[in-house]
Amino acid sequence: MREELAIILNLFIMFAAAKIFAEIFTRIKQPVVIGELLAGAVIGAHGLNWVIEKIVVDGHTVNIGSINNALAELGVIILLFLVGLDTKMSEMVEVGRPAILVGLFGVIVPLGMGYALFTAFNYDTIRALFMGTAMVATSVGITARVLGDMGLIKHRVSRIILGAAILDDILGLLVLAMVSSLAKGAFNYIEFAVLLAEAILFVLFLTAIGPRLVGNHIHKLFDRLHVQDAPFAFGIILVLGLSVMAEFIGLAAIIGAFLAGIVLSEAKDSFDLEEKFKPLGGLLIPFFFVVMGTKFDIGALLNPKILTLLALTVAVAVAGKMIGAALGAAQLGLKTALQTGIGMVPRGEVGIVVGTIGLSLGVIGQELYGIVLGMSILTTVIVPPLLALAFRSDMAEPESAAAEEPV
Amino acid sequence: MREELAIILNLFIMFAAAKIFAEIFTRIKQPVVIGELLAGAVIGAHGLNWVIEKIVVDGHTVNIGSINNALAELGVIILLFLVGLDTKMSEMVEVGRPAILVGLFGVIVPLGMGYALFTAFNYDTIRALFMGTAMVATSVGITARVLGDMGLIKHRVSRIILGAAILDDILGLLVLAMVSSLAKGAFNYIEFAVLLAEAILFVLFLTAIGPRLVGNHIHKLFDRLHVQDAPFAFGIILVLGLSVMAEFIGLAAIIGAFLAGIVLSEAKDSFDLEEKFKPLGGLLIPFFFVVMGTKFDIGALLNPKILTLLALTVAVAVAGKMIGAALGAAQLGLKTALQTGIGMVPRGEVGIVVGTIGLSLGVIGQELYGIVLGMSILTTVIVPPLLALAFRSDMAEPESAAAEEPV
Repeated sequence: MREELAIILNLFIMFAAAKIFAEIFTRIKQPVVIGELLAGAVIGAHGLNWVIEKIVVDGHTVNIGSINNALAELGVIILLFLVGLDTKMSEMVEVGRPAILVGLFGVIVPLGMGYALFTAFNYDTIRALFMGTAMVATSVGITARVLGDMGLIKHRVSRIILGAAILDDILGLLVLAMVSSLAKGAFNYIEFAVLLAEAILFVLFLTAIGPRLVGNHIHKLFDRLHVQDAPFAFGIILVLGLSVMAEFIGLAAIIGAFLAGIVLSEAKDSFDLEEKFKPLGGLLIPFFFVVMGTKFDIGALLNPKILTLLALTVAVAVAGKMIGAALGAAQLGLKTALQTGIGMVPRGEVGIVVGTIGLSLGVIGQELYGIVLGMSILTTVIVPPLLALAFRSDMAEPESAAAEEPV
Repeated sequence: MREELAIILNLFIMFAAAKIFAEIFTRIKQPVVIGELLAGAVIGAHGLNWVIEKIVVDGHTVNIGSINNALAELGVIILLFLVGLDTKMSEMVEVGRPAILVGLFGVIVPLGMGYALFTAFNYDTIRALFMGTAMVATSVGITARVLGDMGLIKHRVSRIILGAAILDDILGLLVLAMVSSLAKGAFNYIEFAVLLAEAILFVLFLTAIGPRLVGNHIHKLFDRLHVQDAPFAFGIILVLGLSVMAEFIGLAAIIGAFLAGIVLSEAKDSFDLEEKFKPLGGLLIPFFFVVMGTKFDIGALLNPKILTLLALTVAVAVAGKMIGAALGAAQLGLKTALQTGIGMVPRGEVGIVVGTIGLSLGVIGQELYGIVLGMSILTTVIVPPLLALAFRSDMAEPESAAAEEPV
């Protein structure tokens, strides 16, 4: 088979499978993300094995798998950029204290409980920390999508949830960077301190100063540029550039991509950035979830010990977030605390990203990766009906799901 | 270096270089395409050598170059899809007879003259045919862009030029398929006849029946689908699917992509397809031209024989198109024939695609590839001023270049 043919055939199979499962999952009113993961599991090496990993051309091996991984990486970069683009720092500051408290407790409690659970099952510190980290980040994308689909996006509690979820993402990614550096070798306090300082400076500079710099100077810059569609090109250069910087520092590329989105979030409406980056996401994001799904080996889960551990992980993931969020929102009354807690449960893509990084670092194996994926999927699936129940009395006239734009 | 870092760093360098050169070329009022090629030549292996081709991770080699090639392939597929999307069969039929004549003669004369030139320089039949083929296709994208920038896009002669250029693209790609099959091995009449029949059926079915099928049934299909943004997803599945089919038949993927665009051209306005695919092009197309540019070895051109051959090739490329076009447009008067002839001269991306395929098949080497690139670049550079001269008396108030959308 020619290299070009193998590449395009692979893309065709992955994209078509993603969309067939997306269609089915839309019809049965389940999150499309889960459909795309399942599509990957079905066509991947542990399923029908339709995804081409390697071909031999003229005697040398072409690793098609690394092309798939690169497209998936580009997909998750665009995804986190779009999430960042939706994150206005000015709005985050408004939600203020409750969101920060919910976010903080929503990180500490699941991390602690997850670590305790896996330590209890005799996993070593690094593995247990990694599993705890995978339970930290609330999926901003999924939470926003679910609240939007229910017509609740402007609700006061929704804004607390979203603010806290965003903070969770940042904290979760920082914790991930820490744990990754721990996993990479003997623990070195100085390196760790340098990484922490670099990470804090990087994040603070980009969240506190970045949006203001862009807000004050970007119009002048774009007025001076002659190249066509300069804002879009600038957006791509910024997201790739900050992704590279994040990797250089020792953080994950997705942190840089997310921060690039935040930097441009205040300027996005002037330049149709969201409209232009969404099609990029439409093409590339499915590759991320499908490729992640191909790594999901359902066979590895089918033994009593792992299934027990998965059930316990899900229970801890749900309880951890609800306890943490309820602690943070305690002052706001029982009902708000409950609603906030449920809204924080879905892990979605960030949990999967953590799992993937753990897998690529060799910290976790197929079993724990399967548990992370299963936990991310199950916490995401159970939330929509629970949220509907918790918000029953506040529920606005639901907006049509079709009117919501995909993330 | 981590694999992720190498991949994203590479993308960042290529994209940023493309945009810096695009900015410069926009300022000096030269085609951006040429700037992007030059960017590739500057940062590529024959220049600064900033593009990463291979890295070693944990003892195994990751071929970053094949990831770059895959993105470039995706870029040219999107480019040809966008060109096809701009090609309404109904409008082509309207321009009718003169466009067909100009198109036909514009293929035959340059092919014949190119073949004769390289035969005269003692190249064998296949090489000479390949070089002739590289001179066949008029760049629809570049021609449309130049005429648009001059405010002449609605001019009667412009429509003849565009119709003929589109026909040239189809014929050029068919000739390319034939010559490629010739190049692939001992010539086999039956195989050749089968390929020809398949190619004709494929092209005829998709151009004659495809748009009508889509026009009649696509709305019903999209009404039934529940998945979000079904038309965009359908477009991606169609462009990848037809690219795969074209490769299966033995044609190039870009022919399938171009035909996918034609199939959807009548429906594009109902579903904002162009608006959604243009950002994909904005991200991916620069990778194609930059990657092509990295293969450009200016050193290989710097010897008297090759420079002479390049000068002769450009002369033949210009004269061939002008004679062919003038023959086709003879009945329309000298001025129209001249304007048409000049408008048909730019080769742009299709010539480069032919060269790249020739290089990957091993039919042509660095020298001839350099000549193809040089010819494509020079024919594109000289046309804008010549067209301005030829259309001086008809020139409308020029539209602002910034108002034109990029292809």
